[in-house]
Amino acid sequence: MIIIMKEAATKQDIDAVEKKLTDIGFQTHPIYGEKKTVIGAIGDKRQISMNEILLMNAVENVVPIMRPYKLVSKELIKEKSVIDAGYGVTIGGKQLAVFAGPCAVESREHFLKMARLVKASGANILRGGAFKPRTSPYSFGGLEGEGLKIMREAGDELDMPICTEVMDTRDVELVAQYADIIQIGARNMQNFKLLREVGKINKPILLKRGLASTIEEWLMAAEYIMSEGNDDVILCERGIRTYETSTRNTFDLSAIPVTQELSHLPIIADPSHATGAYKYVGPVAKGAIAAGADGLMIEVHDCPECAASDGPQSLKPEKFDELMKEISTIAAAVGRELEI
Amino acid sequence: MIIIMKEAATKQDIDAVEKKLTDIGFQTHPIYGEKKTVIGAIGDKRQISMNEILLMNAVENVVPIMRPYKLVSKELIKEKSVIDAGYGVTIGGKQLAVFAGPCAVESREHFLKMARLVKASGANILRGGAFKPRTSPYSFGGLEGEGLKIMREAGDELDMPICTEVMDTRDVELVAQYADIIQIGARNMQNFKLLREVGKINKPILLKRGLASTIEEWLMAAEYIMSEGNDDVILCERGIRTYETSTRNTFDLSAIPVTQELSHLPIIADPSHATGAYKYVGPVAKGAIAAGADGLMIEVHDCPECAASDGPQSLKPEKFDELMKEISTIAAAVGRELEI
Amino acid sequence: MIIIMKEAATKQDIDAVEKKLTDIGFQTHPIYGEKKTVIGAIGDKRQISMNEILLMNAVENVVPIMRPYKLVSKELIKEKSVIDAGYGVTIGGKQLAVFAGPCAVESREHFLKMARLVKASGANILRGGAFKPRTSPYSFGGLEGEGLKIMREAGDELDMPICTEVMDTRDVELVAQYADIIQIGARNMQNFKLLREVGKINKPILLKRGLASTIEEWLMAAEYIMSEGNDDVILCERGIRTYETSTRNTFDLSAIPVTQELSHLPIIADPSHATGAYKYVGPVAKGAIAAGADGLMIEVHDCPECAASDGPQSLKPEKFDELMKEISTIAAAVGRELEI
Amino acid sequence: MIIIMKEAATKQDIDAVEKKLTDIGFQTHPIYGEKKTVIGAIGDKRQISMNEILLMNAVENVVPIMRPYKLVSKELIKEKSVIDAGYGVTIGGKQLAVFAGPCAVESREHFLKMARLVKASGANILRGGAFKPRTSPYSFGGLEGEGLKIMREAGDELDMPICTEVMDTRDVELVAQYADIIQIGARNMQNFKLLREVGKINKPILLKRGLASTIEEWLMAAEYIMSEGNDDVILCERGIRTYETSTRNTFDLSAIPVTQELSHLPIIADPSHATGAYKYVGPVAKGAIAAGADGLMIEVHDCPECAASDGPQSLKPEKFDELMKEISTIAAAVGRELEI
Repeated sequence: MIIIMKEAATKQDIDAVEKKLTDIGFQTHPIYGEKKTVIGAIGDKRQISMNEILLMNAVENVVPIMRPYKLVSKELIKEKSVIDAGYGVTIGGKQLAVFAGPCAVESREHFLKMARLVKASGANILRGGAFKPRTSPYSFGGLEGEGLKIMREAGDELDMPICTEVMDTRDVELVAQYADIIQIGARNMQNFKLLREVGKINKPILLKRGLASTIEEWLMAAEYIMSEGNDDVILCERGIRTYETSTRNTFDLSAIPVTQELSHLPIIADPSHATGAYKYVGPVAKGAIAAGADGLMIEVHDCPECAASDGPQSLKPEKFDELMKEISTIAAAVGRELEI
Repeated sequence: MIIIMKEAATKQDIDAVEKKLTDIGFQTHPIYGEKKTVIGAIGDKRQISMNEILLMNAVENVVPIMRPYKLVSKELIKEKSVIDAGYGVTIGGKQLAVFAGPCAVESREHFLKMARLVKASGANILRGGAFKPRTSPYSFGGLEGEGLKIMREAGDELDMPICTEVMDTRDVELVAQYADIIQIGARNMQNFKLLREVGKINKPILLKRGLASTIEEWLMAAEYIMSEGNDDVILCERGIRTYETSTRNTFDLSAIPVTQELSHLPIIADPSHATGAYKYVGPVAKGAIAAGADGLMIEVHDCPECAASDGPQSLKPEKFDELMKEISTIAAAVGRELEI
Repeated sequence: MIIIMKEAATKQDIDAVEKKLTDIGFQTHPIYGEKKTVIGAIGDKRQISMNEILLMNAVENVVPIMRPYKLVSKELIKEKSVIDAGYGVTIGGKQLAVFAGPCAVESREHFLKMARLVKASGANILRGGAFKPRTSPYSFGGLEGEGLKIMREAGDELDMPICTEVMDTRDVELVAQYADIIQIGARNMQNFKLLREVGKINKPILLKRGLASTIEEWLMAAEYIMSEGNDDVILCERGIRTYETSTRNTFDLSAIPVTQELSHLPIIADPSHATGAYKYVGPVAKGAIAAGADGLMIEVHDCPECAASDGPQSLKPEKFDELMKEISTIAAAVGRELEI
Repeated sequence: MIIIMKEAATKQDIDAVEKKLTDIGFQTHPIYGEKKTVIGAIGDKRQISMNEILLMNAVENVVPIMRPYKLVSKELIKEKSVIDAGYGVTIGGKQLAVFAGPCAVESREHFLKMARLVKASGANILRGGAFKPRTSPYSFGGLEGEGLKIMREAGDELDMPICTEVMDTRDVELVAQYADIIQIGARNMQNFKLLREVGKINKPILLKRGLASTIEEWLMAAEYIMSEGNDDVILCERGIRTYETSTRNTFDLSAIPVTQELSHLPIIADPSHATGAYKYVGPVAKGAIAAGADGLMIEVHDCPECAASDGPQSLKPEKFDELMKEISTIAAAVGRELEI
């Protein structure tokens, strides 16, 4: 790390910092500028060391040199991760991954119908909510265990992996029995206990970016999961909170190339939650694929106006079918594939 | 609710909306403007109805009339809630509540020392972390059960209520055995399962505002707790995420009068997490009390540079003591009390 | 507009609002709900009326029905505007508009060289800064009048329209003598005096979105220009300010479909300023075109490390050439054209 | 500056950076860590140098050591500036400065009436808008020259300095003839040409923080003014843009201690624009003074519901009078003075 001393720092202040650093095992390399002195420190960085130094007299700032994550970093694993979801579907390779289905599992008949339709249009992973995080305690919270069984049945019938969210450490075991990919929702991106639990599971984890999380915090959340031994993390950009109110969130397109620069993990886009409005799902989905995303997660419902949740952002099956055709053309234009 | 039709809406479009509304039990009151028609609808609003209408042809917007929360609202309970924390301490009355202590419980000796010091300076509630949410999986996560026991011992010795955070539904029962006030941290403000669990407990809940939560979402989180039967919720403003980087978060001073306008629940301020820098804790604490906050939560550590977490934002005991004296003067200037 | 009365409103409060509204020429239509009363008001809305009502006793909220802009609205002009930049180039039609060139005009030789290169790669409009807004008073501020002459010479030689920024009302006349398209920069999006001045000019205006402007404020800025008689406004999304620091700004992809939904004006994307890093320019440019943008503005410099400004976000000519080929393929995939 | 090399950097990459730096006159001090090399560079930093280095092969990041501003910095001028506004009023000393008056100058009679009232309550500087920035081109834009004359008359009659906004370089001379303090509004904080013009004037400048400006950008704007020779800059925190919608802006309380830490310039608070709602003006005003602000700017109007602009955030004279009494008590509690 680099310690920047204030202009007003005396020789004593500088000596004290050097002494402290050498005491905890660092080698120090002071550089005396015209106005300020900076001290390079080499050694075993622990987070606490930065604070110890930051609070010393006449220290202006401490700049870390190493990034805080390791396992998710491209510096450690140089090749892009390709994650196996089972049923012949991978995420991160040439083929795009398209997660589709209704926001919530509403009934067996309805979910099977939707599942068949999205598969017919080219989706290769089924999505659906059995446990639903809802802003209001009075809203529909999902079919829970019953929903999981319905999803599993659909996955088996259609020979497709299924992806669903877990919200509570107590439900991880249950969800892992049914799901092929376990989703951590935006509101739980820093539910560290839950991250640790899914890190112990032997199934891919879809990690949504938090409502207002930085890319670094998001990668640190992935690091939590990987630090428990689960290497199969898929990032999902779903829009961040800004002051703009014309969409539910602001889709951060550049998060795609930025995470690809920093990490080996694949990244998909969720234009449904990003925009909150079906009219904008298509343009954002197309933009994400052109920018290099490894896939999409899209909400599809045959009757958005009667959906149990998130109707306004759901595409009707026929719109989804059209969009898959357009995505397929764009995929080809950027060297990717989507079989439809 | 009010339905605003697009300029291009035809009579058929308007009739269809009216029919739909009357079918689901609403009375409709159309108003024909020069350019646009709006339809007032009276009846039993359920969230889903808004979407059903929003997605109909030629509907531009649907405006709800009622706020989404009930139990937290000042419209329901007009008098300000005064919450009893035990040991003769209340939150929301004339007397200010000052929660103080180290960020994390580090050891029995250290916590007891800090507890005695903050009590001597005027704090009336002990705070400390036994379970710590940490951005990095490699950082200190707290003493857990051991930490709870240490806090309880300090509380008993000093005859003071203790407040500590719970992060996992599986730990609620344990934490409730020891703590007088249970804290829900910013990262868990929308951990809905956890909110429901603490809603079933018979102890006051300190609900921190989420990292980037709106005041409405925050009140909805309080509503979750109250909807399970626990009326004793204390709000805590701890800064929100903005683009400004000179402080860890941006303290939203106006959240104090805004929540007091909308809700009967008491609100305290956490200048330590809001600023992330000990130098700014004092000014923000003073500002919050002058603006009408019911109390403060402040991190105090005798050796900030060796604190297990959040050192840079911790006050040394002598600075805390000085600040309590200043707060006491300001309290008097705004008609509140702080015995020091 | 719609007036929502508080639950506590008395008949007198409601009568007073109705009287006020009828006094200033509105027709009122009260709707009595179970808990709250709302009043629909039809008439000639002026901004001030909303405040007059909002401040009356027991009024909870006033909801406008009409959007605040008219001339920019798709409700007024249903067909998309295609803007003629001269030299056979239009913006908003099937053909994409690509504005390219160095951030600043640095010298005659350099600008001409860059201009020839970007034209050869498929750019159809030259961009360059003669007057440069700089965060620091000590940075290079542009060649001013001299820069304008150089740009004009390049435009004449290559038979291409040129686009450059004006920052001061006193310079509008001068810039208009040379430029084919006049740019209003992000920092001046609400420099209302400047907007009025360029509204009086008979040349297309490229209006960048403000650093942290809502889409509505941006359209209101376009309305300022159009209200003075200049209909040729081109919107330019260049990223907005958020808490994310891995890019200079956050490119708001959904601003493309949102403005296209609300307005007839064409919209282009500026991935250079949005990202601030050459590595991310390509992905964002491709994403914008796939999402439906009418063109791009890209900074190109043969020696980014010696550029007078914005080097880190400039593409080298060979990278720009490659990108144009990719853009051309994506354009075809979404039914647009880019001749390269 | 400090150059951080990537882990993958070769000896050649490092040599190239060192050669480049020495070629442009820097001394280099490489520090070889276990994984990464960093290079300290001492010499005459010009902004361009950072980019030259940042774009070199295997360079990960370049960290500046010196802050970008000089004249506004506390490192240069250690003592707090006390600015003389004339008429015996100073800003930055023990006495608080209270700027008060209506948002816009509406008529001679009205302004004189308001001026007398605010003076009677303890305001010591008159504020009013002659040139008004308005979001809509159809809103009232101010009385312009006529408004300036009215303000001057009031200032002369009451023996008080007056403060008013200038929006256009062409009006600086005119405004300077009448005003004692010239305001740069939030929307013009980065109107660099205007900053330069007011930097040439011999009158104090009130510089509002931009709508979404960082504190560093704000100080750089002050640096623009000071770099032209005008040392009398007063900062004004007026709220920043966030995602929270319950107030017009989010008042950044910590900006008060932060700017006081970094700069010698005085800072006042504008709770009227920060909140946009008269109900919240009092709490925010009190909080700002308790946190150490040097004064307040408050909009006062005897008929907020008929104000030409910003009615909802204006205090009635009797409310302002009450607030001044409360402020006076808080001022005393924090060692300041307000004569009322």
